[in-house]
Amino acid sequence: MTAALERPRPAGGPAVARDIGRLVVACTDGPGIVARVSAFLHRRGANIVQSDQFSTGPVGGRFFLRTEFHLPGLRAALPELDRAFADEVAPALGGTFHLRDASPTTRVALFVSRYDHCLLDLLWRARRGELPISVVQVVSNHPDLEADVAAFGVPFAHIPVTRATKGDAEQRELDLLAGRVDLVVLARYMQVLSGDFLARVGVPVINIHHSFLPAFAGAGPYERARQRGVKLIGATAHYATEDLDEGPIIEQDVVRVSHRAGVADLTRAGADIERAVLARAVRWHCEDRVLVDGRTTVVF
Amino acid sequence: MTAALERPRPAGGPAVARDIGRLVVACTDGPGIVARVSAFLHRRGANIVQSDQFSTGPVGGRFFLRTEFHLPGLRAALPELDRAFADEVAPALGGTFHLRDASPTTRVALFVSRYDHCLLDLLWRARRGELPISVVQVVSNHPDLEADVAAFGVPFAHIPVTRATKGDAEQRELDLLAGRVDLVVLARYMQVLSGDFLARVGVPVINIHHSFLPAFAGAGPYERARQRGVKLIGATAHYATEDLDEGPIIEQDVVRVSHRAGVADLTRAGADIERAVLARAVRWHCEDRVLVDGRTTVVF
Amino acid sequence: MTAALERPRPAGGPAVARDIGRLVVACTDGPGIVARVSAFLHRRGANIVQSDQFSTGPVGGRFFLRTEFHLPGLRAALPELDRAFADEVAPALGGTFHLRDASPTTRVALFVSRYDHCLLDLLWRARRGELPISVVQVVSNHPDLEADVAAFGVPFAHIPVTRATKGDAEQRELDLLAGRVDLVVLARYMQVLSGDFLARVGVPVINIHHSFLPAFAGAGPYERARQRGVKLIGATAHYATEDLDEGPIIEQDVVRVSHRAGVADLTRAGADIERAVLARAVRWHCEDRVLVDGRTTVVF
Amino acid sequence: MTAALERPRPAGGPAVARDIGRLVVACTDGPGIVARVSAFLHRRGANIVQSDQFSTGPVGGRFFLRTEFHLPGLRAALPELDRAFADEVAPALGGTFHLRDASPTTRVALFVSRYDHCLLDLLWRARRGELPISVVQVVSNHPDLEADVAAFGVPFAHIPVTRATKGDAEQRELDLLAGRVDLVVLARYMQVLSGDFLARVGVPVINIHHSFLPAFAGAGPYERARQRGVKLIGATAHYATEDLDEGPIIEQDVVRVSHRAGVADLTRAGADIERAVLARAVRWHCEDRVLVDGRTTVVF
Repeated sequence: MTAALERPRPAGGPAVARDIGRLVVACTDGPGIVARVSAFLHRRGANIVQSDQFSTGPVGGRFFLRTEFHLPGLRAALPELDRAFADEVAPALGGTFHLRDASPTTRVALFVSRYDHCLLDLLWRARRGELPISVVQVVSNHPDLEADVAAFGVPFAHIPVTRATKGDAEQRELDLLAGRVDLVVLARYMQVLSGDFLARVGVPVINIHHSFLPAFAGAGPYERARQRGVKLIGATAHYATEDLDEGPIIEQDVVRVSHRAGVADLTRAGADIERAVLARAVRWHCEDRVLVDGRTTVVF
Repeated sequence: MTAALERPRPAGGPAVARDIGRLVVACTDGPGIVARVSAFLHRRGANIVQSDQFSTGPVGGRFFLRTEFHLPGLRAALPELDRAFADEVAPALGGTFHLRDASPTTRVALFVSRYDHCLLDLLWRARRGELPISVVQVVSNHPDLEADVAAFGVPFAHIPVTRATKGDAEQRELDLLAGRVDLVVLARYMQVLSGDFLARVGVPVINIHHSFLPAFAGAGPYERARQRGVKLIGATAHYATEDLDEGPIIEQDVVRVSHRAGVADLTRAGADIERAVLARAVRWHCEDRVLVDGRTTVVF
Repeated sequence: MTAALERPRPAGGPAVARDIGRLVVACTDGPGIVARVSAFLHRRGANIVQSDQFSTGPVGGRFFLRTEFHLPGLRAALPELDRAFADEVAPALGGTFHLRDASPTTRVALFVSRYDHCLLDLLWRARRGELPISVVQVVSNHPDLEADVAAFGVPFAHIPVTRATKGDAEQRELDLLAGRVDLVVLARYMQVLSGDFLARVGVPVINIHHSFLPAFAGAGPYERARQRGVKLIGATAHYATEDLDEGPIIEQDVVRVSHRAGVADLTRAGADIERAVLARAVRWHCEDRVLVDGRTTVVF
Repeated sequence: MTAALERPRPAGGPAVARDIGRLVVACTDGPGIVARVSAFLHRRGANIVQSDQFSTGPVGGRFFLRTEFHLPGLRAALPELDRAFADEVAPALGGTFHLRDASPTTRVALFVSRYDHCLLDLLWRARRGELPISVVQVVSNHPDLEADVAAFGVPFAHIPVTRATKGDAEQRELDLLAGRVDLVVLARYMQVLSGDFLARVGVPVINIHHSFLPAFAGAGPYERARQRGVKLIGATAHYATEDLDEGPIIEQDVVRVSHRAGVADLTRAGADIERAVLARAVRWHCEDRVLVDGRTTVVF
């Protein structure tokens, strides 16, 4: 009832302008990096639309750069642009770079157990074009959410996991995803993936943990939050690594709770934070905003 | 990947203990109100589980009380309890009271136009048992969301509204809802309901407005927020009254935005706040936590 | 430049109405507690102004009650009221109760090392009448802040502490405070008080820790927050116990930080949260809002 | 009691590295701006440490750039650098630019009436080296805060203002400040400065308004917030313009309040938000992070 004025539903995709490219650089800091990169882009007819940089220290620190540029005819020009950057600029910088067309969506597999809030939120945001992703597969160790996933037209694979079958299950998962995904998101997947899986899956894995890490790492964070009597509970999205809940943190947030909140209340309140934090982390990752710096991240 | 431990999905309903009753009182403040009420409940075998009260001033102020009590055999005892309170306590208090079994869910009709975020969030939460509501009807002036609603097994009525047909449309809505609902929620319904409708519908109407009221009341709040250059945007849930966006506020929240956020970004970020604020307002209303005090509310 | 209208500075004290008493009860839950307490107050001519209660479970749970009441002539009536409550009500409740006049300020000693932000904030608030406290003594293991404290007319005791002199120093502190204070506040006091001190000081001790506990308990929390790459930093006010940073939490809050924030930035941003959290904790404690429940607190 | 480890008080000044310069550009967007600017700095031996940019649209939009660079011997090199930029780069950009040494502190005059919280907070932050400012003058229309200001060694001018004397008072203020300040901060100054004063003072004026603008512009915002029953109250720092409370917003924040909060409680809770918001706005302004874009600001 807020107004007679009505606006149409947002069209089927995020506002990705055509001919927008992204360049991400991570190297040792030194003089003239920005000058070199921007001169290169300018010579090639690209106009910088947005640029962020960060250095851990001017002398010998680690340097990170993320640049969005507009270049008419980007798609056709990209291979040559990549080659030219590799030849003309990269050697002087050292480090690594990544140059890509900003328009393609990221192909994502979602892993889930039985809680539906993160899964539904990501599927829904993808459908309404809020996230630059296409969900190509859902994997679950439980059958519960099959119908919900089917309603979004996404394949659902039920792969049960027991202690005895874990190796086989992970192999099935790897076979299922091979070559099909750019990112795996653990949307409240209550199984610990092995270091072997993480090494072989070949794409980043983002996990949502239902606590404000490093507090309450591991099992039962809401129960332990209740016992400790904290006044805020939180959620943490991080890259999964072999060390459980120790990977580089992408995003965190918290919500205030009182002594009246039992574990069920914490679980409910926390669910809202979990889905919000995970959605932000996935968006930032897919927009190439998250650069890993050792155990931490730079988020542009 | 947070833990090997796995908990089942919450069962189909919020944690409503049986035999819990609720008593809400609004009257002029004066000595002994709590004593009278609690003595009455104690005499009748009820044990107070939770009690909140608020007075705008000890002498002649307005007094508000919300009490949850446990009474074995509540359902059968309720009619007599109500009669006894009306006879023995209410006359001394003046004002109004409301005594009910806490367990029945609130029957809700959702009104929506084309934005789906508030609608889906409430349907998800209702299905998950997070809100003590059952959605019995969705009404929309557009057909767009029919399939989404059907997936939840909820009837969807498409009732178009034009300037010329508004009176007829509202009559159809009133006919459709008559006797079937305890609450109407405007979940981004972009039509202004008439004062006549509000008077005749006979149940409270909660609206979500996409600004931090009283800032940006009326149409186009995100556009106007952008123009004014505010650093936070918000959402407000309030009871709908004949004065557009002037009804008693139940809940508000905000999110930080930067100069980089265009109207589309504000709309997307705001959507998350809108659905969170609306869900809280609906829950609190259905738990009898919201007492109207003139143009404002007391929220216990 | 916000308005031509000008309001005088708030008068020298918080808005404590005269003749307001407070009753705090902690006992095992059972039927009729509120009825008994409110009937007692009503019989004695007291009108309940505000009442909060909380139970960890209706059958055998722990029950907590905080009631503010208005009783003309409270001060004179208090001794007899206390005796009557002890005779007529307390035996049936079991547990503990505390009945007092709400108007006297709490006598506070502040312990501080070299960081001034928490100390000054509390002194400012006390002077402005924002906190119901009177600061009667500042104790520091460094001389740095003596002049700042003197400007408020508060005695400053410089009591250095080394490993060798710690026992003597604590004895001097105990002698200095004996009978003069109702509360000790560690306002960034960087010495660990011994269990012996805590046992003998005879009043509650509130500490501010510069992290979101249980994350980063112990030394160097900002350094460790930086290393772990958390996206929010926090502060925690808690009752000091023999187990460092393990006492019942009274209040916590956080602030968002980015990868750009070095340890100095975290320290600066954190200081604002520390002083805000500590001020709230002190206020709530002095208003009898904080009830300890094992390792946690109930905050009414 | 958080740790035995003790760190010394921060030294007397913010972490301003020597030889750091700042370049701020505002112009119409077009290709190659970043390339031109960064190539110029590189040629001159400057290394970009931090750079932020924003464009309202790639074709004909407004473009904003803020760059921090390291240049050995900056102070001596600055005049020539400025001239060279004006000759070699600025003509191609159009618009305006500003090039300066980052190390000098901003000379600030604080205007205040009787509320002390914003004044004390800024004086204290300046003293502890948290803000890159030196407060050179306090002006007040009341004598109340003279002793507090004296304790910081800052001159205090009591200049009463009445309707009849306003013109004379403003003239005295202009005479007092002429050539001595780079910024005026209205730290809860309850007089409306005339357009004539704002035009003639010749430096930016930052005001703190005690509401979340545009809600509750003008007088009595806390009273009106109470009447409207909002669930959050806020504060807004903005550049003062002739249109009261309509100037470009620099920073805003809010805090949650409940129905229990009377006007005195709102005033107290709001004071904490006011001082925090104002301190951030002053810091960002003095670090050249705030660029005015019509009625709004870009904050890097």
